[in-house]
Amino acid sequence: MTTLAATIAQIRPPDPAIAVATQRLLDAKTKPPRSLGRLEDLACQIAAIRGTTAPGPAEKAIVVMGADHGVAAERVSAFPQEVTRQMLLNFARGGAAINVLARQAGARLVVVDMGVTVALPDEPGIRAHRIGPGTRNFALGPAMTRAEAVAAIEVGVAIAGELAHGGVTLLGVGEMGIANTTTASALAAVLLDAPPDTVTGRGTGISDDAIAVKRAVIRRAIEVNRPDPADPVDVLARLGGFEIAGLTGVILGAAAARVPIVVDGFICGAAALVAARLAPAVTGSLICAHCSVEPGHRRVLAALGAAPLLELELRLGEASGAALAMPLVDAALAILHEMATFEAAGVTNRDG
Amino acid sequence: MTTLAATIAQIRPPDPAIAVATQRLLDAKTKPPRSLGRLEDLACQIAAIRGTTAPGPAEKAIVVMGADHGVAAERVSAFPQEVTRQMLLNFARGGAAINVLARQAGARLVVVDMGVTVALPDEPGIRAHRIGPGTRNFALGPAMTRAEAVAAIEVGVAIAGELAHGGVTLLGVGEMGIANTTTASALAAVLLDAPPDTVTGRGTGISDDAIAVKRAVIRRAIEVNRPDPADPVDVLARLGGFEIAGLTGVILGAAAARVPIVVDGFICGAAALVAARLAPAVTGSLICAHCSVEPGHRRVLAALGAAPLLELELRLGEASGAALAMPLVDAALAILHEMATFEAAGVTNRDG
Repeated sequence: MTTLAATIAQIRPPDPAIAVATQRLLDAKTKPPRSLGRLEDLACQIAAIRGTTAPGPAEKAIVVMGADHGVAAERVSAFPQEVTRQMLLNFARGGAAINVLARQAGARLVVVDMGVTVALPDEPGIRAHRIGPGTRNFALGPAMTRAEAVAAIEVGVAIAGELAHGGVTLLGVGEMGIANTTTASALAAVLLDAPPDTVTGRGTGISDDAIAVKRAVIRRAIEVNRPDPADPVDVLARLGGFEIAGLTGVILGAAAARVPIVVDGFICGAAALVAARLAPAVTGSLICAHCSVEPGHRRVLAALGAAPLLELELRLGEASGAALAMPLVDAALAILHEMATFEAAGVTNRDG
Repeated sequence: MTTLAATIAQIRPPDPAIAVATQRLLDAKTKPPRSLGRLEDLACQIAAIRGTTAPGPAEKAIVVMGADHGVAAERVSAFPQEVTRQMLLNFARGGAAINVLARQAGARLVVVDMGVTVALPDEPGIRAHRIGPGTRNFALGPAMTRAEAVAAIEVGVAIAGELAHGGVTLLGVGEMGIANTTTASALAAVLLDAPPDTVTGRGTGISDDAIAVKRAVIRRAIEVNRPDPADPVDVLARLGGFEIAGLTGVILGAAAARVPIVVDGFICGAAALVAARLAPAVTGSLICAHCSVEPGHRRVLAALGAAPLLELELRLGEASGAALAMPLVDAALAILHEMATFEAAGVTNRDG
C-alpha cells in the first residue's frame, strides 16, 4: 500500500461515545446545561477525536506551506509573484501577521517551502520540501503531474506525522502563494460542481476588470484540463498548487494521528475538501476557524458540513484565522478540565 | 454636579483622527490592505478610544456584578434564587466558568456583591457594595427607588475609575443574578419600545410554559410601573437590577476614563443600553463580545450600533463571552505593535 493509501485507511471518525461522555461531564459543571454553546461542542469534538474525555491542554503547532502558481502569469493577483518568496522569508524572520498571531496563540510555527519559483537561501525558519519551481500555468495545461501531486500530499502526511509524534495535539494549517485564490476557486468549482463565477472573489483585493480576467482564466482552465471530479488527485494535479496538495496531506496525516486540525480560510478549505473527497471521515477532525470574504469559502464550508467559529471578514490566509480560533479551543478544553461541578462547589442544580 | 452627571460630562467619542492614523499604520504592514478585516477595526477603535496610535498591550480586568431580583418569586427562572449567592461564592473560590475563562484571557477578575438576598461571608474574592437584599418584585411595583438606582450606578463608576487608575486598559463586564434575563427583557422592551414577547427568551433554559409566565410577568411589570422611556434612570429604578445598574455605572466610568469596555451578553447589553441613553457617546467605547441566543440581544446590539465579535450560541453570562473575546483584542493590538512593514521586511507592495 502507498503512504497515501495507508494514511487514508487509518482515518476514523471521532468516537461518538466519547463525545456523549464528555457532554455528560460538562453538564455536571456549575452552569446551565449547554449554556456555553459551541464551546461545549468544541470540547466534545476534541475529546472524541483524541479518544479520551480528558484530552488535556492542547500542544499547538501551525503549519504554513508556501508555493508559487504558474497561473500568476495571467495577472490574476494584485501582487507580483516574487511576494510569495519574500513572505516566506518574512515568516522565517518573524515579521508577518502569522508570526504575531501564532505567538499570541502559543503555537509553534512550521514554515514549509513546497516550491516557490526561486529556491530560498538556507534559513533555520524554513523547511524546504520543494516539488518544483512553482506549478505550471493551468490555464494552458495541467499544473503538475499526478506523481507531483502525490509527492506533495505525502510531504504533508510526513510533516503531520512528525508533529503528532513530537506531541502536537492541535494543528493549525495555513498557506502563502500569490494567485492561489485562483487555484482554490478552480478546485472548488470542479469539486463542488459550481459555476466558477460563484466561487471566485477578489483575493488580495483585485479590481472589477481583474476579477473578470480571473473568472475567464478559471473557466478556460477547466475546459483545457477536463479534470475528473470523481478523482480528487487528478483534480489536484491539473488545477492545484503544491502548497494546497501539501496541506491536503497535512490534514490527512493529522486526522490519521487523531490530531484535530484548525483549518484557516478559503485555500485551506479547498485542501480540506480534497482531503474529504479522499477520506470522508476526515471531516470529523476539522475545526473550521472562520468564514472569509471569499465567496467560495461558504460553499466549501457547507460541503464540509462545517460551521465556522469566527466571522471577522478576514482574507489574509497564512493561517491567521486558524491562529485566532485557537484560544477558543484552549478555552473549551480549560472549561472541561478546570471548572467545578455543582456538587464540588455546593451550588444547587436546577433539579435540586 | 453629581458624580453621575460629572461622569457623563467626561465621556467623549473615540478620536476619529487617531483611528485614521492607526489604519494608515496597519496599511504599511506586510499584508493586503484591510485583509485582517474586523481585527483591524478593533485595533483602530481601541487606539481611538485610548487617544494614541500606540496603545500598547492591554492590561485586562473583568468585573462581574451579582445581585438578586425580587421578580424571581414569579418563578421565571429554571434555578432557585439561592444560586446567585452560591455562584458568587463559586466565583470567589475559582470554580466557575468565568474563573477559567478570565485566567485563559489573562484578565484579573473582580467580583462584586451588589445585593444578594443574604449577605455573603467575608471572602477575599468578593467586594461587598450591597444596595439592599435584592430588588423588590417589579411585577408588583418598582424594583428599587431612584436613589438606589443612582447609588448602584455610582458604585460602578467608582470601581471603573479605581481600575482605570490602577492601570487597567481593557475592561470586561459580566453579571450573575437568578431571574435577570427577565429584568433585562423588561428594560429592553421599554427602552427599545419593543413588544415584550419579542425580547424575551428562555434564559437558563426554561420550558414553554415557563416562558409564557415570564412574558406575562414582563407585560404586567410594564403596566404596573409605567416607566418613562425618556428617563433611563427611572426605567432602571422601576425595572432594573442592582447588578445591571452597577454595570451601567462601570460602563460609564470606564468610558469616561477612556478604557474600552468588552460587553458580555444580553444582560450587560441592557446595562450598556441604559448607559447609551444617559451618554450616547459611550457606544464608541463598547466592544460587544458576542450575540447570545437570547432573542432580545440582537435588538439591543442593533440599538447600540454594535456588531458582535463572536456568535457561539452562548447564554451563560458571568462575562464568559467577554473573556472569550479578549484574545481577539490582544491579537489586534499585537498586529498593530509587532508586525513588520513592507519596507522593513523587504516585501514588494502592490503598488511596487
